[in-house]
Amino acid sequence: MSLPRRLVAEFLGTGVLLATVVGSGIMGVAMSGGNDGIALLANATATAGILYVLIAVLGPVSGAHFNPAVTLALRMRGELDTRETLAYVAVQLVAAVGGVLLAHAMFGQPLLQPGIHARSGAAQWLSEGVATAGLLLTILLGARARPAAMPALVASYIFAAYWFTASTSFANPAVTVARALTRTFAGIRPVDVPGFVLAQLAGTAVALLVAHVLHDRPAAAGRPSPHGD
Amino acid sequence: MSLPRRLVAEFLGTGVLLATVVGSGIMGVAMSGGNDGIALLANATATAGILYVLIAVLGPVSGAHFNPAVTLALRMRGELDTRETLAYVAVQLVAAVGGVLLAHAMFGQPLLQPGIHARSGAAQWLSEGVATAGLLLTILLGARARPAAMPALVASYIFAAYWFTASTSFANPAVTVARALTRTFAGIRPVDVPGFVLAQLAGTAVALLVAHVLHDRPAAAGRPSPHGD
Amino acid sequence: MSLPRRLVAEFLGTGVLLATVVGSGIMGVAMSGGNDGIALLANATATAGILYVLIAVLGPVSGAHFNPAVTLALRMRGELDTRETLAYVAVQLVAAVGGVLLAHAMFGQPLLQPGIHARSGAAQWLSEGVATAGLLLTILLGARARPAAMPALVASYIFAAYWFTASTSFANPAVTVARALTRTFAGIRPVDVPGFVLAQLAGTAVALLVAHVLHDRPAAAGRPSPHGD
Amino acid sequence: MSLPRRLVAEFLGTGVLLATVVGSGIMGVAMSGGNDGIALLANATATAGILYVLIAVLGPVSGAHFNPAVTLALRMRGELDTRETLAYVAVQLVAAVGGVLLAHAMFGQPLLQPGIHARSGAAQWLSEGVATAGLLLTILLGARARPAAMPALVASYIFAAYWFTASTSFANPAVTVARALTRTFAGIRPVDVPGFVLAQLAGTAVALLVAHVLHDRPAAAGRPSPHGD
Repeated sequence: MSLPRRLVAEFLGTGVLLATVVGSGIMGVAMSGGNDGIALLANATATAGILYVLIAVLGPVSGAHFNPAVTLALRMRGELDTRETLAYVAVQLVAAVGGVLLAHAMFGQPLLQPGIHARSGAAQWLSEGVATAGLLLTILLGARARPAAMPALVASYIFAAYWFTASTSFANPAVTVARALTRTFAGIRPVDVPGFVLAQLAGTAVALLVAHVLHDRPAAAGRPSPHGD
Repeated sequence: MSLPRRLVAEFLGTGVLLATVVGSGIMGVAMSGGNDGIALLANATATAGILYVLIAVLGPVSGAHFNPAVTLALRMRGELDTRETLAYVAVQLVAAVGGVLLAHAMFGQPLLQPGIHARSGAAQWLSEGVATAGLLLTILLGARARPAAMPALVASYIFAAYWFTASTSFANPAVTVARALTRTFAGIRPVDVPGFVLAQLAGTAVALLVAHVLHDRPAAAGRPSPHGD
Repeated sequence: MSLPRRLVAEFLGTGVLLATVVGSGIMGVAMSGGNDGIALLANATATAGILYVLIAVLGPVSGAHFNPAVTLALRMRGELDTRETLAYVAVQLVAAVGGVLLAHAMFGQPLLQPGIHARSGAAQWLSEGVATAGLLLTILLGARARPAAMPALVASYIFAAYWFTASTSFANPAVTVARALTRTFAGIRPVDVPGFVLAQLAGTAVALLVAHVLHDRPAAAGRPSPHGD
Repeated sequence: MSLPRRLVAEFLGTGVLLATVVGSGIMGVAMSGGNDGIALLANATATAGILYVLIAVLGPVSGAHFNPAVTLALRMRGELDTRETLAYVAVQLVAAVGGVLLAHAMFGQPLLQPGIHARSGAAQWLSEGVATAGLLLTILLGARARPAAMPALVASYIFAAYWFTASTSFANPAVTVARALTRTFAGIRPVDVPGFVLAQLAGTAVALLVAHVLHDRPAAAGRPSPHGD
């Protein structure tokens, strides 16, 4: 698949993912009469549902990363070159912001609204590190164990991680940056973004190490990225 | 499969789909003590569940469109002829209305009750355009990437779209017309139907374009409709 | 598989199914602070989860009917003989009652407690007829279209039918009889049982007819029952 | 796969399982405004989601037991030797405790907090016996009927068992010991642990017996453990 087409797929997937995360958060809060548990159930289930679809239909085109942490990990394993990596990450960031704006537009909200949800401190950073390490291990081990199940694996993991971490598992630097642009349910203060991204990168490093302990590193040459089956 | 049998399958599937959308909305509201978040969770999950079943068991018969937007998109790609297209759309409209009446009968409600739920304005129309484009892309891309997973893909997409759009994702002109006949949870005012249908057709056009960018157009001759595996 | 083993499987499956329907109803009500929508979500999801498991692991042994309406329909299609049919139905009834008693014991309740939940009238009977016809069509059409997906198909259908019918979809004469023995969430008055069972048998007949219209009747000889793959 | 690698997989899987059970319980309660039904829905769904992932990606490495009752049952069927069995159980216990500590750390709670949730008496013990017998039968029968579906089978079973038993289905001695170290939603009093573990072992014995009745015992030699596909 040509690089431009792969980038279109990354753009589409990352944008729809963010529109779903933010939009379902807005809808969940609007419908739940103040019970945030119901809002988070809706938010987590909708996110899992769209991840299943996006990875299934776009995986064969671009590998369905939608996440700079995934792209970086695959770069470190030699499955992408530097040019592809930079292009993927740039497109993911732009698309993530676009997805947030689309969610705001669909709900008739101001397009730009910097986040006010404080998410900081050791417990939050530990949560993001664990959440990201788990996501990367799901992908790296799943690509060996059950590549055809990747859409269901990532969706199920993210649903669980919404609930078992204190941060609701952003686990994605592009998602984190974009969610700093909404003051709705899924938002985060811009000032809290760097801590989250550093924790996510630390989690990525841990996952690469654990995957190496569990399996010898796979030969990279000629191997398609893990979501593509 | 002969055209009359295919039309029986479209009738059965579209009717049961509407009975589920409207019936589970009535039940959700009746059981949820005023918390619309719980009602919408039930409504969305029940709809996803029945879509999975209907597409799986009727897909091999008719392609399991249940949706004039899907039928039109496949006509434009040359996968149906004009006579089949008109027959499908007519049956879908009649069946959708029948499904709403059936839901009303099962819940002991007046059979005819024009909708009073206002759904109008730019944010709603944008939502319907996005919802329909996403549904069509799920089908068009899924038919290439994972045809056997189509039932799960459409079900997961619709669940997510209930939550990430401001309109709860009708994404189907026959569904929209039929839901104008109920004043329960899932209803819509008759006067708001044309705006929704226009937005859905615009979303269909966008999806055909994006699918064309991502993949060269598939050869149509002799190819069964996408749900059929 | 020998008939005694098949009957053990029907006993185990039907018993666990009823223990789940009744037990998850008790738990749902106990945990939900009076919000029946949450109780029904738990009840429906737990029932779907156990159906998926029971049909998958016991289908290859007995066909995983767990339901006299299913057994009768397969008898009419010639896939069981009369002796097998009578043995299946007898075991299903005994096991269903046993499952209700087990649920009561697990929750420390009186073992015998006749139901007090009124479920009667035309809307309820129509609901049961539709629910049962839908279940039978899911099984009859699914056995042709996707036999390996039968566990997921039946589970998804029953989840949806809990919500889209006014009766919460008993759709099973053995389940109906057994649920007359509990005054908890899932119960039904003994006096309302005959109406439900008649409606379920009518729904079974409708399903056999519709399946015949959609497909020529399959040859029965040597064909295993539909859940077994 | 070498034993040390298998033990790393058991450690990782059991630890993440406990972090999810305890963490999603904390989050569920924090978000649900006192409605325990919503908290348990979140808790059960998150647990099911992570079980699906962990069994899918670690099954090929270690068999994905994560549970001394499973390991003991396979020892009795001759699928593990005594040394492997002791190593598995020791690692499961250590990892389960580690997972609880990780959940506490992610939510900024005291790391050690002995459980105060009373879970005792005949109804609770019956519940644990039934829950464990059902889990073991899911695994033993599923390994014959549908080994590739094991991740979905165990996840669906555990979701249902959260609701149909009065104990919310611990069904795992390592989980029981570790949950005695938290006073949050998922906790149990240390004094109630022995009764639960005895009930779980009794359920394991029942499951081995029932599996033997349903199928002749499979030849053990050279057979991989059941989760590994």
